[in-house]
Amino acid sequence: MRKLKAAVIMGSDSDLPVVSKAIDKLKGLGIEVEARVMSAHRTPRRVMEFAERAEDNGFGVIIAAAGKAAHLAGVIAAHTILPVIGIPIKSSTLDGLDSLLSTVQMPSGVPVATVAIDGAENAAILAAQILALNDVDLRDRLNAMKNDMEAMIDIKDKKLSQGI
Amino acid sequence: MRKLKAAVIMGSDSDLPVVSKAIDKLKGLGIEVEARVMSAHRTPRRVMEFAERAEDNGFGVIIAAAGKAAHLAGVIAAHTILPVIGIPIKSSTLDGLDSLLSTVQMPSGVPVATVAIDGAENAAILAAQILALNDVDLRDRLNAMKNDMEAMIDIKDKKLSQGI
Amino acid sequence: MRKLKAAVIMGSDSDLPVVSKAIDKLKGLGIEVEARVMSAHRTPRRVMEFAERAEDNGFGVIIAAAGKAAHLAGVIAAHTILPVIGIPIKSSTLDGLDSLLSTVQMPSGVPVATVAIDGAENAAILAAQILALNDVDLRDRLNAMKNDMEAMIDIKDKKLSQGI
Amino acid sequence: MRKLKAAVIMGSDSDLPVVSKAIDKLKGLGIEVEARVMSAHRTPRRVMEFAERAEDNGFGVIIAAAGKAAHLAGVIAAHTILPVIGIPIKSSTLDGLDSLLSTVQMPSGVPVATVAIDGAENAAILAAQILALNDVDLRDRLNAMKNDMEAMIDIKDKKLSQGI
Amino acid sequence: MRKLKAAVIMGSDSDLPVVSKAIDKLKGLGIEVEARVMSAHRTPRRVMEFAERAEDNGFGVIIAAAGKAAHLAGVIAAHTILPVIGIPIKSSTLDGLDSLLSTVQMPSGVPVATVAIDGAENAAILAAQILALNDVDLRDRLNAMKNDMEAMIDIKDKKLSQGI
Amino acid sequence: MRKLKAAVIMGSDSDLPVVSKAIDKLKGLGIEVEARVMSAHRTPRRVMEFAERAEDNGFGVIIAAAGKAAHLAGVIAAHTILPVIGIPIKSSTLDGLDSLLSTVQMPSGVPVATVAIDGAENAAILAAQILALNDVDLRDRLNAMKNDMEAMIDIKDKKLSQGI
Amino acid sequence: MRKLKAAVIMGSDSDLPVVSKAIDKLKGLGIEVEARVMSAHRTPRRVMEFAERAEDNGFGVIIAAAGKAAHLAGVIAAHTILPVIGIPIKSSTLDGLDSLLSTVQMPSGVPVATVAIDGAENAAILAAQILALNDVDLRDRLNAMKNDMEAMIDIKDKKLSQGI
Amino acid sequence: MRKLKAAVIMGSDSDLPVVSKAIDKLKGLGIEVEARVMSAHRTPRRVMEFAERAEDNGFGVIIAAAGKAAHLAGVIAAHTILPVIGIPIKSSTLDGLDSLLSTVQMPSGVPVATVAIDGAENAAILAAQILALNDVDLRDRLNAMKNDMEAMIDIKDKKLSQGI
Repeated sequence: MRKLKAAVIMGSDSDLPVVSKAIDKLKGLGIEVEARVMSAHRTPRRVMEFAERAEDNGFGVIIAAAGKAAHLAGVIAAHTILPVIGIPIKSSTLDGLDSLLSTVQMPSGVPVATVAIDGAENAAILAAQILALNDVDLRDRLNAMKNDMEAMIDIKDKKLSQGI
Repeated sequence: MRKLKAAVIMGSDSDLPVVSKAIDKLKGLGIEVEARVMSAHRTPRRVMEFAERAEDNGFGVIIAAAGKAAHLAGVIAAHTILPVIGIPIKSSTLDGLDSLLSTVQMPSGVPVATVAIDGAENAAILAAQILALNDVDLRDRLNAMKNDMEAMIDIKDKKLSQGI
Repeated sequence: MRKLKAAVIMGSDSDLPVVSKAIDKLKGLGIEVEARVMSAHRTPRRVMEFAERAEDNGFGVIIAAAGKAAHLAGVIAAHTILPVIGIPIKSSTLDGLDSLLSTVQMPSGVPVATVAIDGAENAAILAAQILALNDVDLRDRLNAMKNDMEAMIDIKDKKLSQGI
Repeated sequence: MRKLKAAVIMGSDSDLPVVSKAIDKLKGLGIEVEARVMSAHRTPRRVMEFAERAEDNGFGVIIAAAGKAAHLAGVIAAHTILPVIGIPIKSSTLDGLDSLLSTVQMPSGVPVATVAIDGAENAAILAAQILALNDVDLRDRLNAMKNDMEAMIDIKDKKLSQGI
Repeated sequence: MRKLKAAVIMGSDSDLPVVSKAIDKLKGLGIEVEARVMSAHRTPRRVMEFAERAEDNGFGVIIAAAGKAAHLAGVIAAHTILPVIGIPIKSSTLDGLDSLLSTVQMPSGVPVATVAIDGAENAAILAAQILALNDVDLRDRLNAMKNDMEAMIDIKDKKLSQGI
Repeated sequence: MRKLKAAVIMGSDSDLPVVSKAIDKLKGLGIEVEARVMSAHRTPRRVMEFAERAEDNGFGVIIAAAGKAAHLAGVIAAHTILPVIGIPIKSSTLDGLDSLLSTVQMPSGVPVATVAIDGAENAAILAAQILALNDVDLRDRLNAMKNDMEAMIDIKDKKLSQGI
Repeated sequence: MRKLKAAVIMGSDSDLPVVSKAIDKLKGLGIEVEARVMSAHRTPRRVMEFAERAEDNGFGVIIAAAGKAAHLAGVIAAHTILPVIGIPIKSSTLDGLDSLLSTVQMPSGVPVATVAIDGAENAAILAAQILALNDVDLRDRLNAMKNDMEAMIDIKDKKLSQGI
Repeated sequence: MRKLKAAVIMGSDSDLPVVSKAIDKLKGLGIEVEARVMSAHRTPRRVMEFAERAEDNGFGVIIAAAGKAAHLAGVIAAHTILPVIGIPIKSSTLDGLDSLLSTVQMPSGVPVATVAIDGAENAAILAAQILALNDVDLRDRLNAMKNDMEAMIDIKDKKLSQGI
């Protein structure tokens, strides 16, 4: 059985410094990623077409990152039944609160799985957790990552307890 | 020359108690109105088609009302160069702040003319002001309305000054 | 292959009026649900044990609903690599903003897929979208639900266009 | 028939770095602009006089930019039936939330078409959309601009898809 | 020497239930009050004329109450050097935060002495404190009021300490 | 008759860069100023004693500046019937919203005349407006200042209108 | 050794419906309570005297409840080195955010141990936890309460798991 | 009798620059401190074990510092009846509001004594105030610190009064 891909869509290429963490994390977890720049407001047809064909094109999950009145994830979710993960991008004003509310407060019927403001890494991990339901190896990699994370904190803990 | 119509789109028919004030005001000012229920998330294709044909169908301005992650006005604006007026609808949580930010914080290139939370009457007046640039009679009616409004405050002022 | 179950955990039985919409929706979509009352603060061990065994116990996704300093979803996510969906419950103050931020602003490494404040129905649909990656019949039911939703808006639209 | 002009009023010349984007955009779209510094609080009579005569002086739309307790757009709207567009300027505290609420939350009867915080470019595009109802050439330029914007995103999309 | 009067201006007669507490308090403190309904947006000329003549007409302080994008106090302050006290009125959305920010965040040069949201009674006391600088009897009444207030809390304190 | 002085109290000497604008403005308007560092939380007795004796010591108005849980103005107001002006100081977090709410939201009976966040200059002008009720010369200086302010904006306006 | 008492101070007797839960909880845990009505703004001297003598009068912890610009806990903390617990009371506007920030955002040197908005029961439990450091019996009662709480959730959990 | 220790737990070693002020203050007051890095989300078992054994291990109070969806203090409080003090850490977005609400808005039954955002020094003083109920020498040191603080403000006050 062919593995499902993850799409990472950003509303503007200026979001790349944040969003690249999601792309890297997905690749690090062995997931095939397709990264795109598409805007709910500036290229709305392209967004619609991408979303409508995503399932047929082998995607299992779509990550969408946008700032301000962040409609991108919601618009994608309107055109697919694939799970859509939204990353609210912190913009130049309001500290990302506008992006967060525009992404998370979706009306009944069309959910967006929202992560923290600028939470690109967590978007990737969530995508991996979703795809891992179907993929024992990915599950192992996620468990290993969780263990590594724990070990890293423990090292810092030891360093601090002894260092001060 | 044929007069331009105003469209009033709401994301849900539960918004009608608020939005009907816009419809009534537009009719009261002699503007032909078409009222529709269309959702950026539940009937996205219909929204797109409506927006793309709005100019050809004789509309001069589009009012869009939605709550929560209120994408409706922005999605319409993505598909037309007609002026789009957004009414952020107060929903059951966050007192309309989510709707306001989702409507007003549009990215560069695709503006939404946002009025106050639940400001349906002002959306209608703004639409009329826009259409009035082309319509001397409508201008007269707007001026008359402004004068009436002023007179009404004056009556209340007299009543209060003498009453207390 | 045995179908994966969905867990619906709430921090307090007072959340049931909101959360029951998630339970009903999941059942309506043919998903086996287990509903539980467990508190991150009052029965933390039970939460931990549930989360650690959830994968082995046949769950594919966990929905967690909590209010105020809503730690439940995050604490569950700390103990499993299953996708965890958080429903921020609107409490008696702050209109659910505290619950939303406590649920969504997770640190790197441990994501919570957050839906709207009191967005129980969307939590269920998101859970279904995740489980549907593995389940063609569920995919069909989700597509049918999406079509029904669209049709319902269209009916309301026709009613309004002709009624006013 | 003589073309209608756009006015761009700012409350302080310190707003010019933001507001100049509106002036440039309007000029770029071939619209005649008059830029002014006038303050609702420091030169209130001048604001009133300008607003009252704006229609007779050949203006079709007024853009007003102000920060903090941003009354400028509202005060102008009180004295004219021309459409007034408000740009909330981000000030040194509160990230522009004060400016946004002071601009958008207008009482019934006197609307201000509010754009995003510091959204000067969108204010210009909205003004152009309004004036374009009367001006086929401007409509063409707006459509061209929309197409260019779309093409630019597509280029960035291609670059990203192939580059990573 | 003739005593200075206090003006109490409200933007709408719907504010009277809140504002009447200011009127009553001022009268209770023996201050001559003139109460008016005038709107910064609907009767802007009248507001301007009132403010410009207030000093000559025997006023020593002006209280202005308004909700939403509450410009009334600021517009009055623009036209007089009398101290202007602003009461932000809680409106149907945003819990008065819009009114508060629109009233208090005045730009340099034109202050508004802002009291709490719906703080009509305090507006009156503040006005009395200002007028009392010139009026020994009023000073005595304010001191008596302060003592009464203290005594009343003491009675409640005794009641509670003994009652529970 | 001896002229009333203005007191300027700050909760911490780190507030001086902001507060010094109030001191300078008061001096520039010919008002005798006494500047003090006193903390509602760290030197509460000194604050109380200062406030209780302020009237007898020849003060007509007290300006108090503090950040975070800004209690200074309120505590002073508890001990005097002189008008107390509060300057909410922007601190390292929350952009001054905490200071603003702690200063302005006073309970009935004890008002604080609150100005904008970091609005030191306006605090001084408000103090001058209050003292000017008793002082014709100060009134003249305030009127002159208002005229200068207007003239300055006009110069900037001319420069801009002709310069662009 | 004589047991330390807990003081429960409220700024207004209108806070009693919320605050009585703290009083009841403390009594239920066997702690001697003294409940008082004292206001930081209306009876400031009494507050100061109470705080200064609290340690000598046998108190080990002071709970202070106040709304709006909630200075009570901070003012008490300024006059004692006893631990002071603040309960921010939700008032008629701003949903308690003003009370929370006024209570918790204390400057360095004078802490207030702040609990949730209207969190009277938790204030009592926190007071008990503090006093229990010195009191083995109280520690036992707190542990029993924690176990009861856990058992109650378990009962609800069983009821729900079997009932749906 | 052996003196009780204070624990200072931080969710990430990146919090150390803020949290070290708590550690230093506690040491300066002669309190034995144990500093640890443990994460409610990344090392949840370790947090649980630490909290459960803290009382037996000689701790009298636990300080926990975390940012964003700051669950650390609440999770610790779930596993102990020792008083737990929470320091909300300001993170890269939302200015610490998320951390504050996630820490302070605890449900009934499990309190967290919350101090100001980044209020590490106050967390230490509060811990000392709690431990001082049992420790006359510590009480003396706290009183001395309070006097020093007062004296320091007085020196600054004198410098300012004479310097300007």
